[in-house]
Amino acid sequence: MAKSNLELVCECDSFPYYEDDRAAYTANLNNYHAFRVSGYDATLGYILNAVVERFPWPQNCWAVDSAARTVTLLAPKDASPAHRSKLVAQSVAEAVRHSHFEVLKGWRNEMYPVFGPRGEFLFEIERAASPLFGIVSYGAHLTGYVEDLAGIKIWVPRRAKNKQTYPGMLDNTVAGGMCTGEAPFECIVREAMEEASLPEPVVRAATVSRGCVTYVHVRDVRAGGETGLLQPEVEYVYDLKLDPAVVPKPGDNEVEAFQLLSIPEVQQALSNGEFKPNCAIIMIDFFIRHGLLTPENEPDYLEIVARLHRRMEHPTASHCSR
Amino acid sequence: MAKSNLELVCECDSFPYYEDDRAAYTANLNNYHAFRVSGYDATLGYILNAVVERFPWPQNCWAVDSAARTVTLLAPKDASPAHRSKLVAQSVAEAVRHSHFEVLKGWRNEMYPVFGPRGEFLFEIERAASPLFGIVSYGAHLTGYVEDLAGIKIWVPRRAKNKQTYPGMLDNTVAGGMCTGEAPFECIVREAMEEASLPEPVVRAATVSRGCVTYVHVRDVRAGGETGLLQPEVEYVYDLKLDPAVVPKPGDNEVEAFQLLSIPEVQQALSNGEFKPNCAIIMIDFFIRHGLLTPENEPDYLEIVARLHRRMEHPTASHCSR
Repeated sequence: MAKSNLELVCECDSFPYYEDDRAAYTANLNNYHAFRVSGYDATLGYILNAVVERFPWPQNCWAVDSAARTVTLLAPKDASPAHRSKLVAQSVAEAVRHSHFEVLKGWRNEMYPVFGPRGEFLFEIERAASPLFGIVSYGAHLTGYVEDLAGIKIWVPRRAKNKQTYPGMLDNTVAGGMCTGEAPFECIVREAMEEASLPEPVVRAATVSRGCVTYVHVRDVRAGGETGLLQPEVEYVYDLKLDPAVVPKPGDNEVEAFQLLSIPEVQQALSNGEFKPNCAIIMIDFFIRHGLLTPENEPDYLEIVARLHRRMEHPTASHCSR
Repeated sequence: MAKSNLELVCECDSFPYYEDDRAAYTANLNNYHAFRVSGYDATLGYILNAVVERFPWPQNCWAVDSAARTVTLLAPKDASPAHRSKLVAQSVAEAVRHSHFEVLKGWRNEMYPVFGPRGEFLFEIERAASPLFGIVSYGAHLTGYVEDLAGIKIWVPRRAKNKQTYPGMLDNTVAGGMCTGEAPFECIVREAMEEASLPEPVVRAATVSRGCVTYVHVRDVRAGGETGLLQPEVEYVYDLKLDPAVVPKPGDNEVEAFQLLSIPEVQQALSNGEFKPNCAIIMIDFFIRHGLLTPENEPDYLEIVARLHRRMEHPTASHCSR
């Protein structure tokens, strides 16, 4: 069955909205505990009740309040990010030993940062554990394309068949998660070399920052592991218009091959569900920004644009050093 | 005092968010009645309680429920949009005679459309009356620019000193409200000729649809008339890269003169508060889409992008004829 663009967006942005059904929204939120860090007046993520029940929560560093539905990391008032990160790492290690969470079996050895109400770095956590805490994660996606009088063609990679997540699906030209301390543009430069063998000078000179796509995903069976976990995501979006002579090539084992697809070919692959879900919506954002989807040809235009830019309920990063 | 980009966004998108303070949001909403049309299960706008008290609400076609805080237009089940529009027009005319609303003194003789849950046209209403009902209004904004190796320069008009609203302030190259039956692109083509004397073939050939900006504005003293009225707005966004030889010229009495400003000049004018508020945020959206504002140079990047694309609580238009 062909998927509409709005259906593709809804598959990523699957957490309900308060304004659609206030009672249902509140009932749904009752399935989660708010994740907090002592000393900060903010909810940093939502933890599924079923996770709260199974996670070990070492008593020296966690307070679980079942009535208020909060889980709070207890750290000294003057704790450093490194100190908090160590407490979290010890607790996650305990969970690996005793709690048998499926998502922790996909251990990545990549650390994801968590930020406070003023965009300040609070601590970092193993990427595989982040959905257990429902914290905001960050990535950067680049669409590489060529353009001539006949129109735009897009460089689309197919994910390796042995990749842990979404094997064999179509992806964005370059995409990656942002680890602690990494800025979005530097993430793209690094991933462009690693994944697509794009020369650093080309990427630095011609890549343009175009905004970001944000959504709150509720993990389902397709992501693997426990379902119902929240995954709010920020994807910084970049365009790179390439000279036809520059051909991306797989640089590591993540990508099987790159194809240069026409817009109708990309649209067909989207509606077939061939794209990894969050890569599909980056492509829809590209179509909107380049005038390929318009208010006159896309019936769900306004709903799509709003949902591609969901405002996060939690504090988010500031990558600005100003 | 210099205004930050986020401050400029907040001046437009000034209605509170549920997730920021749930109690305050609900308390604020108690200041409004939900505007409904019989036969449709949707809130089409929010009407300030003070307006509900003063508006005449002819009893043959309105039901006001103070307990549920709803105001419902009563029309026969099979009423046509023309029928509903007539009932609304008669009521607004009554209000002009008896209720002395300041906003109705700015009568425009332009009809704004209101849409139902499936994007269907329900009725139309005089533009000046739309803030009394807090309905979503629609506009289209075009940024005309030239680009060479030195960078981008933008064609910025100054509004006529005798214009009813925001006289003498800076504006977008072309901008206008969309009346009943008008599609966004056709609105831009029309306004580009009327306001900027841009030849229709140039506009049709080179204008690119780039998305939309959406926000919920609470009218304050600067807009003139009653304060606290809600004005949710959708602005479809277009770019037009112009040949340096094409120079926009005032085509009617709305614009005083056009200037070609560099990006630093536009940024200075923004932070000085010289732009009409909703034109300021269209400019910020342009800066984000063209890589002039980035996650690395704008501290409030994520909050700005989300708030430029607010999801409407009310049904919105579909301009797609597919």
